[in-house]
Amino acid sequence: MKPVKVGVLGLGTVGGGTVNVLKRNAEEIARRAGREILVSRASARHLTQQRICDTQGMSLTVDPFEIVNDPDIDVVVELIGGYDLAKQLVLTAIANGKHVVTANKALIALHGNEIFAAASKKGVMVMFEAAVAGGIPIIKAIREGLSGNRIKWLAGIINGTGNFILTEMRDKGRDFADVLAEAQALGYAEADPTFDVEGIDAGHKLTILASIAFGIPLRFDKVFTEGITQITRADVEYAEELGYRIKHLGVARNTEQGVELRVHPTLIPKRRLIANVDGVMNAVLVCGDAVGPTLYYGAGAGAEPTASAVVADLVDVVRAMTSDPENRVPHLAFQANAIVDTPVLSADDIKTAYYLRLTAEDKPGVLADVSRILAAHQISIEALIQKEPLAGESSVPIIMLTQQTLEKEMNAAIAEIETLATVTGKVARIRLETLG
Amino acid sequence: MKPVKVGVLGLGTVGGGTVNVLKRNAEEIARRAGREILVSRASARHLTQQRICDTQGMSLTVDPFEIVNDPDIDVVVELIGGYDLAKQLVLTAIANGKHVVTANKALIALHGNEIFAAASKKGVMVMFEAAVAGGIPIIKAIREGLSGNRIKWLAGIINGTGNFILTEMRDKGRDFADVLAEAQALGYAEADPTFDVEGIDAGHKLTILASIAFGIPLRFDKVFTEGITQITRADVEYAEELGYRIKHLGVARNTEQGVELRVHPTLIPKRRLIANVDGVMNAVLVCGDAVGPTLYYGAGAGAEPTASAVVADLVDVVRAMTSDPENRVPHLAFQANAIVDTPVLSADDIKTAYYLRLTAEDKPGVLADVSRILAAHQISIEALIQKEPLAGESSVPIIMLTQQTLEKEMNAAIAEIETLATVTGKVARIRLETLG
Repeated sequence: MKPVKVGVLGLGTVGGGTVNVLKRNAEEIARRAGREILVSRASARHLTQQRICDTQGMSLTVDPFEIVNDPDIDVVVELIGGYDLAKQLVLTAIANGKHVVTANKALIALHGNEIFAAASKKGVMVMFEAAVAGGIPIIKAIREGLSGNRIKWLAGIINGTGNFILTEMRDKGRDFADVLAEAQALGYAEADPTFDVEGIDAGHKLTILASIAFGIPLRFDKVFTEGITQITRADVEYAEELGYRIKHLGVARNTEQGVELRVHPTLIPKRRLIANVDGVMNAVLVCGDAVGPTLYYGAGAGAEPTASAVVADLVDVVRAMTSDPENRVPHLAFQANAIVDTPVLSADDIKTAYYLRLTAEDKPGVLADVSRILAAHQISIEALIQKEPLAGESSVPIIMLTQQTLEKEMNAAIAEIETLATVTGKVARIRLETLG
Repeated sequence: MKPVKVGVLGLGTVGGGTVNVLKRNAEEIARRAGREILVSRASARHLTQQRICDTQGMSLTVDPFEIVNDPDIDVVVELIGGYDLAKQLVLTAIANGKHVVTANKALIALHGNEIFAAASKKGVMVMFEAAVAGGIPIIKAIREGLSGNRIKWLAGIINGTGNFILTEMRDKGRDFADVLAEAQALGYAEADPTFDVEGIDAGHKLTILASIAFGIPLRFDKVFTEGITQITRADVEYAEELGYRIKHLGVARNTEQGVELRVHPTLIPKRRLIANVDGVMNAVLVCGDAVGPTLYYGAGAGAEPTASAVVADLVDVVRAMTSDPENRVPHLAFQANAIVDTPVLSADDIKTAYYLRLTAEDKPGVLADVSRILAAHQISIEALIQKEPLAGESSVPIIMLTQQTLEKEMNAAIAEIETLATVTGKVARIRLETLG
């Protein structure tokens, strides 16, 4: 049979990795797919740059539109990233009847609904395994592997940079800013680290996971995100003392009131497998009503792990390209006409347990005041540590774990606690999930 | 569209769980599959038995052949287990043009080559996600999710009973026989526990995993299996002291000399995620050349976790049943004509590191003798513990970790060590894998 002809847009890290994997494993991949998969064209910003891949046998261009408009190309692999140009290219490829594979989480999270509608109309596939958690086949696991379940919730470490920073803070007792600077020097973190440390990148990925888990449209605008910039070394240590690890999680939960979509630092019990996922590694915990908790772990970024997902999508496309479009795996796991726009809960209505840290004068009555305020908001204290004052200081840190409460109750309680004359500064608050 | 009509053979634990999941999640499943999936017929040994599922609306029979011969049935779900009858039923269903879903690992491991050949001839699908690691979508992950990789090796905790026993031995300092008796009382272990504790069940599953990972035929007859019956409480404790856990692993490795297929107790570093998979849970670590190590974790048995896999297969069948049989996901991941009968290495030619425990007289020169024998076989010692003699005893336990060596060298060395006058009894030997 004729080889499937692929056009790759973007020959950076992931593009180069994809070309390398397709070449190195060409025989193995053809044995699986039943056809050879050939990168016949690729676009890059500069034609004469040093690359991680061999471009022999490919026709190179600086204009990606040449590729999406080339009638000889069967599948377009979009690896340039970003929003506008990528969207235009993908929509043009679809309009030209080409299947698309992309690793672009931002594109899918923000424009996926429109892109999938266009793809369904043209009967082409748009695959995006590489958009979430790099090489871990998490889209496939949820979309196909757990299709018998009502997914109750999922929680993922889906940003390697953030997890690297939190792991270093814990292992080496270092401060956030210090580790971030090192991560930037090592190339793990971007010069502008906002997307990673503020949870935006994780928010894009969570949007996609929640959609395929619950059968809801992609709603990135509804994701609550909180970054890890406020996490202190002290919080990491107190959490350990209480038997917890702090991880930056994306959490999606299917509740009777609506869907929770949130990214925030989270205390999780140390004994959970996911609490032991360290460094730049990713992991996603998915709980289905039939299967119970399942976990998927692997490299969430990097040239070849991401390429692994891109190539798996290519093999899927090859295996399904002659099939009836009506009977393929739906883009968002559920049939397009069965996607239900379940309300997404506002942050106020999310229920979690909390870790609180406050600095108080070392005087009788402080704890009584704090407890009274929490009780007035129906918040129960689960555990408490009060430390000795440091030498020469008159204030002490008080650390509390609370039971589950609505976020709005916690906001109100914290506001009141902060007005106490005996409490100094802000109350630090980190959400806590048992993931049981 | 008309519902897909399913006939279920066997209404025991997994059969009942499958019916329950299909009924409870009917709407959610139809939203994913695009069609209703209806169990219209089922067979059971007795028609009037108490069951875990509601059989309303199904036509029941004691004769499973009625179902595989019923022209009205689209898909047969085989959940009766065992070899002969199951094989006959599955082959009849295939001959009648029906797709088959099975949870029967023994059937696939022993007769899969024949069954898949028959299925390919008739253009029907035979799905078996539930045959390995229960609810974990591990077949799908390897067969489709990692299809861009050359799989280098995989290692799995794929027998829950064995893992429960080893976990209890470690956590509570109990003996093997004692925990086994409890597991039998709890219903985790069969009255005849041979399949579980001797590694036969794990061998069936490993056979399947290795085949789809490496593109080789199913070769259960070539799997080396060693059970956990010889593991002592002392071994578990010494392993911990050295920074390791003992797990009963199925290991498959793709080497230049051939494929290793082996099930045996294994020391693995405590810090590995898979070393922390406890109780009846299962996990499989898969290392691809592009993606690196990935891990899949979840419930490996039980009514609903297994049903989760059966139903996912049913959804896959529904999504693909109108497709061209030539372009579907191949049964064993690789195209039938691309399966290569790579030699499977004999146990003698397997290379691993070892944990050795021997009892020696507390005399000078013993260690020198033992070290000399190991050195003569080119075996290096990596770590060593020599304990004080117990009160009133003159012999001491010596524990060693060695570097990697060929099994035949180790066998020869152990035989020589056992002839030393200063060494009492047998040398206990457990393989060690760093899984790095």
